[in-house]
Amino acid sequence: MIRKAGAGATRISARQIYETLRDQIAAGVFGIDGQLPSSRSLAVELGVSRTTITVAYDQLLAEGFVAVRQGARPRVVAGLLRHVTPVRATRARKAVQLSAYGKRLRRVAMAPDSDGGKLIADFRYGELAAGDFPQAIWRRAIHAAMAGRADRLGYDDACGSRRLRSALQGYLWRARGLRCDLEQIVVVNGSQQGLDLCARLLLDADDRFVVEEPGYAMARHTFAGTGAVAIPTPVDDEGLVTDTLAPGAARLVYVTPSHQFPLGSVMAVSRRRQLLEWARRSNAHVIEDDYDSEFRYDIDPVPPLHTLDAYGHVIYLGTVSKTLSPTLRIGYLVVPHDMQVAFAMAKRLSDRHSAMLEQEALASIIESGRYESHIRKMRRLHRERRETLLAALRLTFGDRVVIAGADAGLHVVARFLDLPRKLEAELIDTARRVGVGLHSVSDLYAAAVRPDRVTLIMGYAALDTGRIERGIHLLADAVRLCRERAKRR
Amino acid sequence: MIRKAGAGATRISARQIYETLRDQIAAGVFGIDGQLPSSRSLAVELGVSRTTITVAYDQLLAEGFVAVRQGARPRVVAGLLRHVTPVRATRARKAVQLSAYGKRLRRVAMAPDSDGGKLIADFRYGELAAGDFPQAIWRRAIHAAMAGRADRLGYDDACGSRRLRSALQGYLWRARGLRCDLEQIVVVNGSQQGLDLCARLLLDADDRFVVEEPGYAMARHTFAGTGAVAIPTPVDDEGLVTDTLAPGAARLVYVTPSHQFPLGSVMAVSRRRQLLEWARRSNAHVIEDDYDSEFRYDIDPVPPLHTLDAYGHVIYLGTVSKTLSPTLRIGYLVVPHDMQVAFAMAKRLSDRHSAMLEQEALASIIESGRYESHIRKMRRLHRERRETLLAALRLTFGDRVVIAGADAGLHVVARFLDLPRKLEAELIDTARRVGVGLHSVSDLYAAAVRPDRVTLIMGYAALDTGRIERGIHLLADAVRLCRERAKRR
Repeated sequence: MIRKAGAGATRISARQIYETLRDQIAAGVFGIDGQLPSSRSLAVELGVSRTTITVAYDQLLAEGFVAVRQGARPRVVAGLLRHVTPVRATRARKAVQLSAYGKRLRRVAMAPDSDGGKLIADFRYGELAAGDFPQAIWRRAIHAAMAGRADRLGYDDACGSRRLRSALQGYLWRARGLRCDLEQIVVVNGSQQGLDLCARLLLDADDRFVVEEPGYAMARHTFAGTGAVAIPTPVDDEGLVTDTLAPGAARLVYVTPSHQFPLGSVMAVSRRRQLLEWARRSNAHVIEDDYDSEFRYDIDPVPPLHTLDAYGHVIYLGTVSKTLSPTLRIGYLVVPHDMQVAFAMAKRLSDRHSAMLEQEALASIIESGRYESHIRKMRRLHRERRETLLAALRLTFGDRVVIAGADAGLHVVARFLDLPRKLEAELIDTARRVGVGLHSVSDLYAAAVRPDRVTLIMGYAALDTGRIERGIHLLADAVRLCRERAKRR
Repeated sequence: MIRKAGAGATRISARQIYETLRDQIAAGVFGIDGQLPSSRSLAVELGVSRTTITVAYDQLLAEGFVAVRQGARPRVVAGLLRHVTPVRATRARKAVQLSAYGKRLRRVAMAPDSDGGKLIADFRYGELAAGDFPQAIWRRAIHAAMAGRADRLGYDDACGSRRLRSALQGYLWRARGLRCDLEQIVVVNGSQQGLDLCARLLLDADDRFVVEEPGYAMARHTFAGTGAVAIPTPVDDEGLVTDTLAPGAARLVYVTPSHQFPLGSVMAVSRRRQLLEWARRSNAHVIEDDYDSEFRYDIDPVPPLHTLDAYGHVIYLGTVSKTLSPTLRIGYLVVPHDMQVAFAMAKRLSDRHSAMLEQEALASIIESGRYESHIRKMRRLHRERRETLLAALRLTFGDRVVIAGADAGLHVVARFLDLPRKLEAELIDTARRVGVGLHSVSDLYAAAVRPDRVTLIMGYAALDTGRIERGIHLLADAVRLCRERAKRR
């Protein structure tokens, strides 16, 4: 840092400024565009005359570190931007001592991040097409939110803006038949933060929690982070198998009743009642993740588990990650009355509250009806994509592939009857090399018992119909290659 | 919810639609503007003919529930919007069983939320004036960020956008002399989430942590949430008193070296070295909260503690809550190399990553130099406000008030020599009634030992100079009233 001239300090010289800037250029401090501060602003910053800065800049210019265009700020010469000296490494020290939580995180194996769309067709679940985002509507809503600011910028209610919670309250009833008080709604940064808050407030080390098997791995990791122990419980065509739940067997059950993740079944009403009765007897909580309930095609809408809950054991979890964009980081919890205060406190200590601009923008598009009309539009588009995917799979693989979970949501599960699971890793690898992203359901099992055939979770929400067809075509090539190689061995 | 006609279901009637909508109107589902869905979209939603919807709407119109203007969607009649039937309350159940973390949160007493600027002058610390926000610059940056979207919308790196981290890397060096690798930076939702991640990764129940006394209460509550025990350690004119730190006495120390919160001292270099030496010997971590280091007036900038840290014990914490707005929820950590993976994992399980639009916008205004020019502009404005506040206090109270911490930051501490502390609650209450928000330093002490005189923390960043003068004038009235009342007793 360049020290500013203060009381008793000697005024810094052009030489010092030159040397500091030269070192900063070498270390790549000036970022992507390579622009240095203007001489006027740097002079103010350092408390020196503008002439002093000009002398330093002229020296940098003379030595070829910067280029100057009339009227613009000096820029680092393009070639130099690439030669970044490695920054000072810290010296060796004793091994870092993490908390029990930190140590547990080290044992979690999480799926790698996205490739960012470098493939021809990536069937990764959970991503959306950028072109589907209601750009113009969102832009207007963000604009209006920026214009409508209060007099002072301060911290808001930890549970979220009242306006958004009021809009969500109406939306939840209109779209999902779910009735709740505004005070029961907690706005969170996507469903992941909802899961994390539930884990922290409800689980201690060595407690037990039930998750679906197979199920959503991030939920399992989040609950296990507390040191609690997972009880993976099978799912069938009627959703989570509830018969085997012993009273008091767990403090918490995580379920996806509208569209089981990943296998796609809808939880039967008898199972729902059984689960709620178990929760009441066990004084346990049920987390209902309603993650993609907005998208259903050939089936009637099924009201959330929450609507059957007379005793306040259900915590409902929703998100706009599937309806608008996962990059917005907005989700919402509906919590029982007697847990409101605890959730508000936990959210406040986690990060005060969620970003306000997005909250206001979302509130306004729900109020105006544009959110729901966007969902209707997307439902039509996703239905078309789904039909294209199903038709392409049928055409290419006939009855050698069995599809599950296609009635709703944004993904299907495809089981390849004539491909033993030992070929799976090779198939995924081969497909990637021809430009297709495939993702195995095996990663979503907690236990070692996994499908005996290649079984893929195939998301289609981010792909147009052309890419879906091209992707299945390439997948067929990859399958052929793998099978031929297997024969030769 | 209205059930959609599906296979085997009877088609829903206009009567059913009418009844459902009537109930929804009574329960206030249609939000602030009271607009019902268009008949076309509702018909699509429910899988019925548009005529069926029209019949239902006509009935609602006839009974005076809605009004219809040509071409527009039906609206709930204004008077009805106000009569919201209370929603169904859940039946009694056993007391909720919270985790140990949840139980500890119940014991935390936190300061109430803001009044939202209803007072003439609220000297609450931590808020900014909405008029100071660089609206036009931020709007353009948000616009550019929205236009520059990728092909797919998916989850980003948990540590934040590479572009923002690269911009912050340059900023930290230019502005604070802090050098780090891009990989050491973790973008968080304001400094609060930074504190929370540190607490979770570094503290277990019954561990010990050092906080400044008096100090930032939210940090203390956050660390105590883990079940660890606070060691409140005094501060003096040279910052945290480090002499009394025994080797291995704590796993973590939280400090504000640039501008001690709330008393305002700058930590002396000898103390800094002593603290780092203690951390090395104890294999402990030091969290350096550099919360308002951008604002300094009569003093030289002091490089962060991080620049003296050769062994990777310091975790640096910065925020844009003081430079742009606390509503944006953006902060950043600089973590030691050997903790990068743990922080990335913890952030990912907390909420995947921070909202991307804001990250991109912030990156672009740092790259273009506008962030730093905004800070320079704000420094001039805040200096003016500070001078107005100091002059008004001097003029009104003379040497009966002693000011501390005015060299830097956005608040001062004012100690009223002739007002015993027992008058404090009454003074705060009286001032509020005449329109002035006052906040006691006493709330920032962990222990029972508190100042013997009325001592206020006075933030001035959200107030223009007129309001500051008016506020101090009203404060003088409140002081007079309290003193007279005390005499009469």
